[in-house]
Amino acid sequence: MEKTVDVRRRQVLIGGAAAVAAVGSVSGEALAQAAKSKPLPKYAEWKYIDSLIIHSSNTMETRRTAFGTSVITPTDILFVRNNLTPPAESITYDPDAWELSLQGVNNPRRITVGEMKRMGVETVATVLQCSGNGRGFFKHKTSGSQWKVGAAGCSIWSGLPVATLVKAMGGVADGMKFMTGTGGEVIPAGVDAKKVMVERSVPLRALESAIVAWEVNGEPLPVAHGGPLRLVIPGYYGVNNVKYLKQLGFTAKETNANIQASGYRVRDIGKKGEPSQPSMWEMNVKSWINHPGEDGGSVNAGMLQLHGVAFAGVNRVTRVEVSIDGGRSWKDAKFIGPDLGPYAWRQFVLPVRLESGSYTLVSRATDAKGNTQPVDRVENHRGYGHNGWKDHGIRLNVA
Amino acid sequence: MEKTVDVRRRQVLIGGAAAVAAVGSVSGEALAQAAKSKPLPKYAEWKYIDSLIIHSSNTMETRRTAFGTSVITPTDILFVRNNLTPPAESITYDPDAWELSLQGVNNPRRITVGEMKRMGVETVATVLQCSGNGRGFFKHKTSGSQWKVGAAGCSIWSGLPVATLVKAMGGVADGMKFMTGTGGEVIPAGVDAKKVMVERSVPLRALESAIVAWEVNGEPLPVAHGGPLRLVIPGYYGVNNVKYLKQLGFTAKETNANIQASGYRVRDIGKKGEPSQPSMWEMNVKSWINHPGEDGGSVNAGMLQLHGVAFAGVNRVTRVEVSIDGGRSWKDAKFIGPDLGPYAWRQFVLPVRLESGSYTLVSRATDAKGNTQPVDRVENHRGYGHNGWKDHGIRLNVA
Repeated sequence: MEKTVDVRRRQVLIGGAAAVAAVGSVSGEALAQAAKSKPLPKYAEWKYIDSLIIHSSNTMETRRTAFGTSVITPTDILFVRNNLTPPAESITYDPDAWELSLQGVNNPRRITVGEMKRMGVETVATVLQCSGNGRGFFKHKTSGSQWKVGAAGCSIWSGLPVATLVKAMGGVADGMKFMTGTGGEVIPAGVDAKKVMVERSVPLRALESAIVAWEVNGEPLPVAHGGPLRLVIPGYYGVNNVKYLKQLGFTAKETNANIQASGYRVRDIGKKGEPSQPSMWEMNVKSWINHPGEDGGSVNAGMLQLHGVAFAGVNRVTRVEVSIDGGRSWKDAKFIGPDLGPYAWRQFVLPVRLESGSYTLVSRATDAKGNTQPVDRVENHRGYGHNGWKDHGIRLNVA
Repeated sequence: MEKTVDVRRRQVLIGGAAAVAAVGSVSGEALAQAAKSKPLPKYAEWKYIDSLIIHSSNTMETRRTAFGTSVITPTDILFVRNNLTPPAESITYDPDAWELSLQGVNNPRRITVGEMKRMGVETVATVLQCSGNGRGFFKHKTSGSQWKVGAAGCSIWSGLPVATLVKAMGGVADGMKFMTGTGGEVIPAGVDAKKVMVERSVPLRALESAIVAWEVNGEPLPVAHGGPLRLVIPGYYGVNNVKYLKQLGFTAKETNANIQASGYRVRDIGKKGEPSQPSMWEMNVKSWINHPGEDGGSVNAGMLQLHGVAFAGVNRVTRVEVSIDGGRSWKDAKFIGPDLGPYAWRQFVLPVRLESGSYTLVSRATDAKGNTQPVDRVENHRGYGHNGWKDHGIRLNVA
């Protein structure tokens, strides 16, 4: 495992003989592996194909071994999850012209990104994670992408605080209890919009930390991640971070769009989704080990630095324990690198000396409110919110 | 200026008719601009050409308008400065196999990156800046790249603390006063190595914060930035952060390589470089405004968010003042976004309402030790260390 040839390649480099020649001495093995992969969709073709598991043109997962230790997840390898086909890339060519409609404020109106950029700028680091991250560990037959750990990443976002925007429009209208974002995807003709549209409501408390973002990790927001404008609600599951944001409304009730009313609801296996069930809003406390590698890997005996990531939604993660014996005994890991704030993940490391044998490496995080990851997943129909530490473990063979 | 079409392109997309077709509706204007640019060298062809000023195949500068507000500088747009032709990209294909020779320790030996990864891991955010950043503002005829502000960036690096490495080798040998890094570039046959090699000595005090890095911004270190292994000395000018690090020595004296003995020395105009002159080690306190745009630009009247970056070498930057009248009056700017630690830059913002007219926007930073940027550059032969705030100003026409 430690001798894997490391070739970072973009898909464009594997298109043909001339393209292969351009990249120089890429190993045959790496090319063969890339050839086996599904291709990246055009809107994400600038990503590093080697670092991703491509489930479909709308669902791409970061490989566990591709997460580095430098805190942020580079946009090149950040997971992608689109509920609908994304709009044409041309909507990002003049990002300042993009219009957002504000509703449910005292002075509702349309406003362009260009105008917003003149009103303020704030920057926040947050974990973005799909509600179904970890679905691949459930044993019942769940529909949806079989993500393991890689439908998550930690990025730095820049944009305008929603609070600033709302204040400029006279404040939230009386009686409003939810913040509702609507995506700018094109709804196919003849389809009932409510059934497929991306429109999500979150409690009004999310207003204080939310931003409407036009930049990620120092670069203009690409279509793959919601450009030209995305609602970023730090600490909330990905689906609430509405892409191509075309309307932001403050509403008395949650939207009746399917994605809210019946989708993203935690319910027993076999039950249908409905509004009384918990919605996928704030993320729970979670961690996993990224190194040394995939489940079932092997390394040589000796010192090892076990490292991984830990986060806790809107709470700050404060502690990570690591076990090499599947949870029978635990040691506190050390956080490394800069602390990017309460919504970001922390990188943790535990140095261990491992002799020959079989090990099961697991990690267990605790947040500032005293919440700790449970041992097991909470069984639920759609496989949402998995933060059980057992399933996230890595079996390691030490030679 | 605010209606510029924003097309992020990699060079590979402008190679010919077929390539142009692949990128979709790129504007003719953008293509024309890219066609005028010098090409990216092969080892950096994955960078965003639109965000760079390409001085030569060894010197690429980030455009002032390309710096975002999300604190870190993405590697895709980070400046490049090589003193020699970089080694073949293949040296990064198996990074763990790269060998470093440790000298001037009690138990000197060679060690691979793979071994180092087992010994520890730490992550540090730091500004990397060329000693000559700002050289383009000097009025005397300086040789070297005519950088303005873009030979700098803030990145997160991961690797092994040099202190850990040295401890494992029995500690620094008695009497050593410098830490000397040697680059792995290939010296052309027939050339006197000492005249061209990249070998830099820094004071032993740098040992405590230095790391030998194999990762930048969450990705394996590419050749363009010193992969597979780079010496990263937080807060020190770029040249000391030796790429393709093949030897790290603790020495009683500074190396006599030209790059140290006579190069990177601050001296009066017309003087030759020699070892008694100050060497380019710790960076001084500095800031500049990145938005709204290049010197001489224009915007419409109204509210604006003036933003830029500030840093202070090994000291923490604590304050930034901004003036819209060329330094006659000042207002404190606000820091935004996460604080990545003492060596990183901070993003600052000052909201202002500008009526029609001409403005000169400047910024002035102060560090934790009370050092403040001077008004003017300190004249010196090679145009090093420019942190005068006046030259870094932006003339802005407000319509």
